[in-house]
Amino acid sequence: MVYLTRRERFSAAHRMFRQEWTDEKNAEVFGKCSNPNWHGHNYELYVTIKGEISAKTGFIMNISTLKQIIRERIIKKTDHKNINLEVDFMQGKIATAENLAVSIWEELKPFIEKEGAELHCVRICETENNSTEYYG
Amino acid sequence: MVYLTRRERFSAAHRMFRQEWTDEKNAEVFGKCSNPNWHGHNYELYVTIKGEISAKTGFIMNISTLKQIIRERIIKKTDHKNINLEVDFMQGKIATAENLAVSIWEELKPFIEKEGAELHCVRICETENNSTEYYG
Amino acid sequence: MVYLTRRERFSAAHRMFRQEWTDEKNAEVFGKCSNPNWHGHNYELYVTIKGEISAKTGFIMNISTLKQIIRERIIKKTDHKNINLEVDFMQGKIATAENLAVSIWEELKPFIEKEGAELHCVRICETENNSTEYYG
Amino acid sequence: MVYLTRRERFSAAHRMFRQEWTDEKNAEVFGKCSNPNWHGHNYELYVTIKGEISAKTGFIMNISTLKQIIRERIIKKTDHKNINLEVDFMQGKIATAENLAVSIWEELKPFIEKEGAELHCVRICETENNSTEYYG
Amino acid sequence: MVYLTRRERFSAAHRMFRQEWTDEKNAEVFGKCSNPNWHGHNYELYVTIKGEISAKTGFIMNISTLKQIIRERIIKKTDHKNINLEVDFMQGKIATAENLAVSIWEELKPFIEKEGAELHCVRICETENNSTEYYG
Amino acid sequence: MVYLTRRERFSAAHRMFRQEWTDEKNAEVFGKCSNPNWHGHNYELYVTIKGEISAKTGFIMNISTLKQIIRERIIKKTDHKNINLEVDFMQGKIATAENLAVSIWEELKPFIEKEGAELHCVRICETENNSTEYYG
Repeated sequence: MVYLTRRERFSAAHRMFRQEWTDEKNAEVFGKCSNPNWHGHNYELYVTIKGEISAKTGFIMNISTLKQIIRERIIKKTDHKNINLEVDFMQGKIATAENLAVSIWEELKPFIEKEGAELHCVRICETENNSTEYYG
Repeated sequence: MVYLTRRERFSAAHRMFRQEWTDEKNAEVFGKCSNPNWHGHNYELYVTIKGEISAKTGFIMNISTLKQIIRERIIKKTDHKNINLEVDFMQGKIATAENLAVSIWEELKPFIEKEGAELHCVRICETENNSTEYYG
Repeated sequence: MVYLTRRERFSAAHRMFRQEWTDEKNAEVFGKCSNPNWHGHNYELYVTIKGEISAKTGFIMNISTLKQIIRERIIKKTDHKNINLEVDFMQGKIATAENLAVSIWEELKPFIEKEGAELHCVRICETENNSTEYYG
Repeated sequence: MVYLTRRERFSAAHRMFRQEWTDEKNAEVFGKCSNPNWHGHNYELYVTIKGEISAKTGFIMNISTLKQIIRERIIKKTDHKNINLEVDFMQGKIATAENLAVSIWEELKPFIEKEGAELHCVRICETENNSTEYYG
Repeated sequence: MVYLTRRERFSAAHRMFRQEWTDEKNAEVFGKCSNPNWHGHNYELYVTIKGEISAKTGFIMNISTLKQIIRERIIKKTDHKNINLEVDFMQGKIATAENLAVSIWEELKPFIEKEGAELHCVRICETENNSTEYYG
Repeated sequence: MVYLTRRERFSAAHRMFRQEWTDEKNAEVFGKCSNPNWHGHNYELYVTIKGEISAKTGFIMNISTLKQIIRERIIKKTDHKNINLEVDFMQGKIATAENLAVSIWEELKPFIEKEGAELHCVRICETENNSTEYYG
């Protein structure tokens, strides 16, 4: 079993809030992250897959295939977008890094498996100090 | 003459556009950066001052004073904010990194000089690949 | 199960040595790290917790709570300090990165659990080339 | 059980290809990575070992011993070399990061164990976006 | 005058040598960098331009135009290539970072000026420790 | 004129204080940096030289010569040392990054000039947020 990780990046706006709460309640729970005028991040996304090395190619999966899957399924939908308003797979969810990691996992899983590999980890770095990981 | 640089960070939403232009025209000039639903970045701000070393302290300026000036004058106004809608010193300006650098220079200059140093450079990194510098 | 990591930093002095050994014996075992006049590092501390995502907040734990715990319990005691002389939880231990990781784990564990999450990993980077991890 | 990681670096040339394939077939499978005139990378190698902390030293293994093992066994053979033509432990293998990770694992394992520790992970970063890990 | 910097990357093979010198003489002057079997790097290229901010766009130059110029004129010719054998603008020159910086400057200058800006600096990072800059 | 930069690193202990001041006065001026028990940093030192490219070698100066000068003159004296107590060229000076930059400049200048190049800049990064530069 060998693991292969690809990093991709997207710059997006978001806010954390619950629609049924008042601005005051949202500010109390989510602090400055609930700013109704949005804020944003340069998100770094690390996708790790695992599998056997192919004797023919020396690859688990061609990393340019992995890159294309991530760009097609995630980056096109998130880069220079508003996560709350525009990202289909985040609708109805609070736009936390935790929920992003789980949702990106669910988006990518079938496409990784179609290539004969296994999705191992989705990691999201929101800032240089804050990150989340999901292993399914 | 010695130079001293302090890095501070802010996460903000923005978009680039001219109000008098149509969305199509804005998209043509600013591309995905003009998304009407906003996007955002982890901005890195590097402020460089210059001056003589004080024989008494070995400092040009105490870097914690420099830090406080930057946080008070810039970070409090920009972090977890919408640059277009909420940052007073960016009103009426297109929210490019170039304009940010110049405006932050103008905001900081009097406070740096009040401390007996000279502002040398304001650098803004919008992403790991894109940055701007202004030297007055 | 989702994982959340917070990075905090502290700058500290230390040396590695056993009091009962001569300076020569200490130098033989610990090399330049046993310098009796101390040396120091910019330590990076990564604390990873795990838990279920709260349906109400989308968080495992509010990362600003995690930040406060780390700052209160670790950074206040270690930043701009001498690890051997001043850090209570390192008394009687050799000031290696391995021992730091284990001791910080023990310091943080009850406070993470009080918040309903589980401590998963403490990672200490002493330099860009050297790091240690402890998982309990 | 505590984990200790050492980073070392090597700059090397390589290409990915199968000798029995035509240049066209190699280009189809390996893309620009099969360029017959070679290309190269600044490889980052992270070696993680695990073990009990020695009560006498506070170490799992003295990290300068680990550094020497990696330099002697891997860096001397790979730095400023051509991986395909000159690295003994890569002969007969396609020069992918996956194969590199597995082969470096095999090279290092006996020397780590001779020191009383256990090899846990070999990680190879080929670029800032692409990396592989092997855990045996 | 405002400055705008774009980073691009290329992974390439090279060696330093003079054809008229023996391998011994080349090894004496260039050390391990003259390995006849090549070695390689992940080069980072920083291109800085300067100009007035356009009142219409807030830009010195649209950074995506700058990106396209660098990719078209430099990255297409250098990425996954052998600098000595394949890069037209390096023919007849020793493949040092110094010569790369000067040559890339000459390649880019007319295309930057065509866009109404001025080329300010070309910086090449060969490794995390070694870099060169050229200002014309 | 081309510029060449070499990065080297040293881990050292220091404190900022004036012997003739009380601990209270030192704490007032230098804050936590005056801790009598010391603290420390991983210092990054960037040395930039300038000169003409040699037609024979393509170098301003062989970067391994520059590396040796920095290691011999600076790193051997500072790495794993106490800047206040042990570094000869810092005696009688407050151990600020500003004074370090100026003193390292003075140490290196004659050795750079002996090699036929000119010293351009000494940059010291004390933390990821704080740095100083000196240009003579």
